[in-house]
Amino acid sequence: MGDLQRVTVLGAGVLGAQIAFQSAMHGKDVTAYDIDDTALEAGRARLQAIVPQFVADAGESLRAAAEQAVAGIRLSSDLADAVGSADLVIEAVPESLELKRAVYERLASLAPADTVFATNSSTLLPSQISDATGRPDRFLALHFANHVWRNNTAEIMGTPQTDPTVYQRVVAFAKEIGMVPIELHKEQPGYVLNSLLVPLLNAAAGLVLTGVAEPETVDATWRIGTGAPAGPFQIFDVVGLRTAYAISSARPDPGSQAWAAYLKTNFLDAGKFGVESGEGFYKYS
Amino acid sequence: MGDLQRVTVLGAGVLGAQIAFQSAMHGKDVTAYDIDDTALEAGRARLQAIVPQFVADAGESLRAAAEQAVAGIRLSSDLADAVGSADLVIEAVPESLELKRAVYERLASLAPADTVFATNSSTLLPSQISDATGRPDRFLALHFANHVWRNNTAEIMGTPQTDPTVYQRVVAFAKEIGMVPIELHKEQPGYVLNSLLVPLLNAAAGLVLTGVAEPETVDATWRIGTGAPAGPFQIFDVVGLRTAYAISSARPDPGSQAWAAYLKTNFLDAGKFGVESGEGFYKYS
Repeated sequence: MGDLQRVTVLGAGVLGAQIAFQSAMHGKDVTAYDIDDTALEAGRARLQAIVPQFVADAGESLRAAAEQAVAGIRLSSDLADAVGSADLVIEAVPESLELKRAVYERLASLAPADTVFATNSSTLLPSQISDATGRPDRFLALHFANHVWRNNTAEIMGTPQTDPTVYQRVVAFAKEIGMVPIELHKEQPGYVLNSLLVPLLNAAAGLVLTGVAEPETVDATWRIGTGAPAGPFQIFDVVGLRTAYAISSARPDPGSQAWAAYLKTNFLDAGKFGVESGEGFYKYS
Repeated sequence: MGDLQRVTVLGAGVLGAQIAFQSAMHGKDVTAYDIDDTALEAGRARLQAIVPQFVADAGESLRAAAEQAVAGIRLSSDLADAVGSADLVIEAVPESLELKRAVYERLASLAPADTVFATNSSTLLPSQISDATGRPDRFLALHFANHVWRNNTAEIMGTPQTDPTVYQRVVAFAKEIGMVPIELHKEQPGYVLNSLLVPLLNAAAGLVLTGVAEPETVDATWRIGTGAPAGPFQIFDVVGLRTAYAISSARPDPGSQAWAAYLKTNFLDAGKFGVESGEGFYKYS
């Protein structure tokens, strides 16, 4: 079963719920924590909504197991209770450095000394948080992608203080819950996937902004030239144009600012957010 | 049939031969030119070698048609004779600006005034050549990718002097010979495909050079995260590591220089050139 058996997921948002589900499906003892009963109820609804999504991907024969996994997840809004006997705490709270540091400062005293802490942060580096954990040697990043159950990656990134044994225990945990572990040897903003994806998307945006080619043309070129199932603007639609806007508008360079303005004028102001709203660069039914 | 029926391909190298073959397969009257009888003989051998490659992709039922297409290609080492009645000249001579300009200066007087000229150059912009053609309004870039017959792209890029009608006639020609035309509205170094691919490959190289992750890890992340059939280092192997080295070593920035040195030390010096030599980042049988 592995030595990281009792898992607590902090934050029952979209990804937190998926992580809890995936862990439960693979036999872990899972607790999902959120801040109050209202948030927990929303979390419970998210967990239940995962079942049909999962079944659509994995097949009807796994419905009963998925329902059982969800039913077995313990929900708690009492942090001390939620983490009191955890082997591993996976933190998936909103992407605010202050909020995350405050959570870890509370965790530091509430969790057993040997509990391993992992942050699912997409945008922060674990070294920005490490000293707040009270256990920098047992702290690292374990980063999941949406649709956790789809034979997906878990990017694992420590700080210089992370104990290599702890790192390998988390690699083993990722495998145990059916993830493909992606081992990073150093801290890298964006991990591996976004370090590759962002330059591709920026280059595609540049071609459209400068008027070299239409989004559909760029996408067709990429699909034909590389055999990929989706071109950059199809990926933008999946990522979500509000997310793309938020990322670009936060960057100071003129190219990013121009792209943010393009997205706002042509899409956001028209309520076109990509796949989630039914229309972005393409229409979805 | 379209109005660009009589096609002369200049240079019967790998891509020149493929362009001639593809045009002949789609009913064009094709002449392949190369500088002397030795070069023409090599060109003839390349044309004949395309047939089994094409049949492997397109099916045995097309073998007779492919052999007939190759047999129908006229070979000439007399430039005046080769282009004297051409509607379209596709230039696929080696990537030297001086050489190409010299070729166009000869062509300018040898070809009929209304013949359209198209360069297949990957690395030069048509505006670097345009004034040597004697007909800047009937000159543009028509860029093919390896394995022309695989439902592949033809990137079409004019200069500010290119007549829009001529541009559209070349778009129509590309469709007539079974290509997916990629219309660029402005000159762009690297066209669309390499404008996207180079930043992705550079980012991947950076992750390996800085020790963040192994090539296999980077590739797995890309495949899983985007659904692409190949990761960046698999693409490097297909492009060829000598080509990748040549590109990186020609760039002055420290990252490119470091990547060129990495490729030389770890691969080129050991005779590992990628797929073509049987080994690169991966082994091929």
